[in-house]
Amino acid sequence: MTKAAPLFNRLALIGVGLIGSSIARAARAQGAVREIVATARSAATRRRVAELGLADRVVESNAAAVAGADLVIVCIPVGACGAVAAEIGPHLAPGAIVSDVGSVKAVIVRDMAPHLPKGVHFVPAHPVAGTEHSGPDAGFAELFVGRWCILTPPAWTDPGAVERLAAFWRALGAEVERMPPEHHDLVLAITSHLPHLIAYTIVGTADELAEVTRSEVLKFSAGGFRDFTRIAASDPTMWRDVFLANKDAVLEMLGTFNEDLSKLTRAIRRGDGQALFDHFARTRAIRRGIVDIGQDSPAPDFGRLHADLPVEPLPRPYAVTDDS
Amino acid sequence: MTKAAPLFNRLALIGVGLIGSSIARAARAQGAVREIVATARSAATRRRVAELGLADRVVESNAAAVAGADLVIVCIPVGACGAVAAEIGPHLAPGAIVSDVGSVKAVIVRDMAPHLPKGVHFVPAHPVAGTEHSGPDAGFAELFVGRWCILTPPAWTDPGAVERLAAFWRALGAEVERMPPEHHDLVLAITSHLPHLIAYTIVGTADELAEVTRSEVLKFSAGGFRDFTRIAASDPTMWRDVFLANKDAVLEMLGTFNEDLSKLTRAIRRGDGQALFDHFARTRAIRRGIVDIGQDSPAPDFGRLHADLPVEPLPRPYAVTDDS
Repeated sequence: MTKAAPLFNRLALIGVGLIGSSIARAARAQGAVREIVATARSAATRRRVAELGLADRVVESNAAAVAGADLVIVCIPVGACGAVAAEIGPHLAPGAIVSDVGSVKAVIVRDMAPHLPKGVHFVPAHPVAGTEHSGPDAGFAELFVGRWCILTPPAWTDPGAVERLAAFWRALGAEVERMPPEHHDLVLAITSHLPHLIAYTIVGTADELAEVTRSEVLKFSAGGFRDFTRIAASDPTMWRDVFLANKDAVLEMLGTFNEDLSKLTRAIRRGDGQALFDHFARTRAIRRGIVDIGQDSPAPDFGRLHADLPVEPLPRPYAVTDDS
Repeated sequence: MTKAAPLFNRLALIGVGLIGSSIARAARAQGAVREIVATARSAATRRRVAELGLADRVVESNAAAVAGADLVIVCIPVGACGAVAAEIGPHLAPGAIVSDVGSVKAVIVRDMAPHLPKGVHFVPAHPVAGTEHSGPDAGFAELFVGRWCILTPPAWTDPGAVERLAAFWRALGAEVERMPPEHHDLVLAITSHLPHLIAYTIVGTADELAEVTRSEVLKFSAGGFRDFTRIAASDPTMWRDVFLANKDAVLEMLGTFNEDLSKLTRAIRRGDGQALFDHFARTRAIRRGIVDIGQDSPAPDFGRLHADLPVEPLPRPYAVTDDS
């Protein structure tokens, strides 16, 4: 055995989409758990999870999934977590840790905590990682490496349980930070929720213009637009729930954003080049900071691949006089 | 000689930043021109261009650069193009093609055309390609491969000259489209200028929040925010000029964007999950269209690289009982 002893005996995954299936792959690759039991709401997903061999057992109900598990991670849209907590509550093993991966945390505490019995440790979590793809096929074991996982345990949660979950996430390659759920929701409103809302908006705007065709939008998207389309391709159910669950913080950030946009709009309208230049020079430093701490690629264009130059000289209808 | 005859005898490049230096590299790699003469406003850039060997000759003035050139490409911020046209006008060789690479085209026609003598062919161009990096070191020969280059020749320009410049861009790997300058400016306002303005705004907003620290913004940027920081790191001078030069179209697109943002804001405020879901489901298709026509990477996360899982098992403070 070259690996350390597993951190948990049995991990129960409720929901096996991008995040759930990445946890399964990473936990197995790292030997972090002895056994994985998974379930999903749709029969098609359960079948696919079994085909992919992501779990040791795939079961049909949430109650069956959590029986005997010492770690339960609920990996479903935020809006569905309360009902699932109510469903699994009576079936949880004493001493089990119950966690989630939701992008909003105050609502998770509000909706899940009341349904969890005494003796079960509740440690809400949010791995700040993902891609624009969804479903069990989209996951991969490296998704969390170098990314942050935020834990927002309620005050009454046993610190030992919090540390055990932190160790699990570190085994998957993540760095772990703790903060109160309300602060998490404010931080994520600006680093994740507002960017998604803005991206969803502008992509919709581009698609509905009368003066510019969709074909033109697609062809000339390399001018910047395509960067927004990635996150505007994220899972609609997940994101509907995020905005409903983090309404206040999102609306607050949106207010500040609108004020800033008005300022820049005014500078354009008035032809105030200096104000524009000053703003644009400042934002460059933020990118540098993100690259410096390893949260994005230093390669230009996110490291997108560029095709090679044409090997065959292209047809050249106009000859040049050769006077060499 | 495996290459076809060069398309032009002497290419003069005025300005050798990201775009100019990419043109130099690609033109040379493809044997598209026999000789490259380059100049830049700053002595430091001229020195660097010489060190990098990007041109056959580096000269100190725009007049010297264009003397005897049959293709002149001005690769500088839009706001400086009129003055440069006035400067080079008297020194252009008869029959030369004069072009540019500016992101706005109506203003380029307005500012440059009056200074160009009869017998010189004016073919404004905009290669819709770039990265967030600037300067002669940032360029690379593959930048234009598979990207679109838009030509906006005035009605009086000789079609033969337009076709020769089109052949040049195709030799560099680009696809070529023609359109009136005013339509170009409208299309780019939505596919490039508004996305940049929005990105510059939100990155500025995140940097000025009282409730969320800059360190938190950087650490948790993988939740979506980091996607915006790439284009908000673009060259400030270039972008100041773009917004000043394409004011009307940008303000028009901004108006539509603001209406759409208000609609989504209202849906969040009212808790209208169905409206949010419907919008989010629709925008997914746009991304698919862009990937399908090869204007972005199909790989998740733009193909960003993910680090490997930790090889060494991490310290695990909590042992699990081994009952297997």
